[in-house]
Amino acid sequence: MTTAAPPDGIDEPGAARATVDLLGVLAYGELSAFDRISEDARAAPTLAGRATLSKIAAAEMGHFVLLEQHLNGMGVVVEDAMLPFVAAWDSYHASTAPRSWLESIVKVYLGDGLAADFYREISGWLPGATGELVQRVMADTGHSAFAEREVHAACQADRRTRDRLALWGRRLLGEAVTQAQHIVAERDELAVFIITGTGDLSGIASLLKRVQFNHGKRMAKLGLN
Amino acid sequence: MTTAAPPDGIDEPGAARATVDLLGVLAYGELSAFDRISEDARAAPTLAGRATLSKIAAAEMGHFVLLEQHLNGMGVVVEDAMLPFVAAWDSYHASTAPRSWLESIVKVYLGDGLAADFYREISGWLPGATGELVQRVMADTGHSAFAEREVHAACQADRRTRDRLALWGRRLLGEAVTQAQHIVAERDELAVFIITGTGDLSGIASLLKRVQFNHGKRMAKLGLN
Repeated sequence: MTTAAPPDGIDEPGAARATVDLLGVLAYGELSAFDRISEDARAAPTLAGRATLSKIAAAEMGHFVLLEQHLNGMGVVVEDAMLPFVAAWDSYHASTAPRSWLESIVKVYLGDGLAADFYREISGWLPGATGELVQRVMADTGHSAFAEREVHAACQADRRTRDRLALWGRRLLGEAVTQAQHIVAERDELAVFIITGTGDLSGIASLLKRVQFNHGKRMAKLGLN
Repeated sequence: MTTAAPPDGIDEPGAARATVDLLGVLAYGELSAFDRISEDARAAPTLAGRATLSKIAAAEMGHFVLLEQHLNGMGVVVEDAMLPFVAAWDSYHASTAPRSWLESIVKVYLGDGLAADFYREISGWLPGATGELVQRVMADTGHSAFAEREVHAACQADRRTRDRLALWGRRLLGEAVTQAQHIVAERDELAVFIITGTGDLSGIASLLKRVQFNHGKRMAKLGLN
């Protein structure tokens, strides 16, 4: 267990609050993902698809429990950490409610990827044990192959499906970035933490560029390029 | 790993088909419980309640995966094993859709208890490894205390709530027994397996009596007596 120093330009208490915020965002992200994915599972065209999506939803709760335990160890109740971020996450999900099974799995795949990208970038600035936890929570749950297979098959069968899903994938990125900006704008320590972590505002711009680039790569993996 | 002989009066292939049926019933029970509980979680009055119910739903999927793997080991695809029992389970859930948060948690608590009772009775007649798996799947997930606490508090606060939940608890037993009878009536090998396992029809009557007795004890634990 190593302990990283907070990025230059932010004091220890500020970094601690930012850390709790980042874990709170992530915890409610898992809980709300569970909620949405379990609902989407109901619309699966096959029993096998339903079981797979239900397993993915359950895996999100596994991550939630890890975050809850870690926060408890820091003396923080997970509900308190999540509360400030409920509205932003709920807005994201309300504005990106899937209208089909394929939209559901594209959202799960790209959404998980976006979250993993962002959190991997910041995990290095977090205290050692917290950074390791975040890496663990963000590890692939092993369901990517399922999404790639389903989406590829559907796209090959129908070009219009592919075009619509490609638009959907781009919209998801836009909505995610919008909500992430809302969150950061409302949490001073979080903003300072991220700005100092990336170095400066141009560091944030290049972080966003990397996230966009990886999102594009994941779209290509689904056949949506 | 021990191997039990099938109960007297049923041949090996019949016992094997009954075993797959029993695992299929259980697997779809877990998948449909996941589905219902995750939906109920959305109606939780607090974020903590929502997280707890979501964790219970996720635990059902953990059990599902164990059953799926065990069936795979027997050369059976879980979806094939579940398919004959989808209608009965869906009927059960449709006829017992909770209208409140308290009804949700009473249903989870009593329903899990009923399933555990029934499967513990039959696990002794199943081949050793399968019986052990069933015992493991039916073990308490550690969330009973949560339900007992919530229901007790609500009942103490309001006697009418208690009376309504007591009726609800009795109705759940009735609906569960009805659907279990439908299932057994439509699966010959399963009927033979259970009749021979219990000894005879009076053995089934006493099994039902034990299930009812334990249900009553669980109602009392919730304060619904």
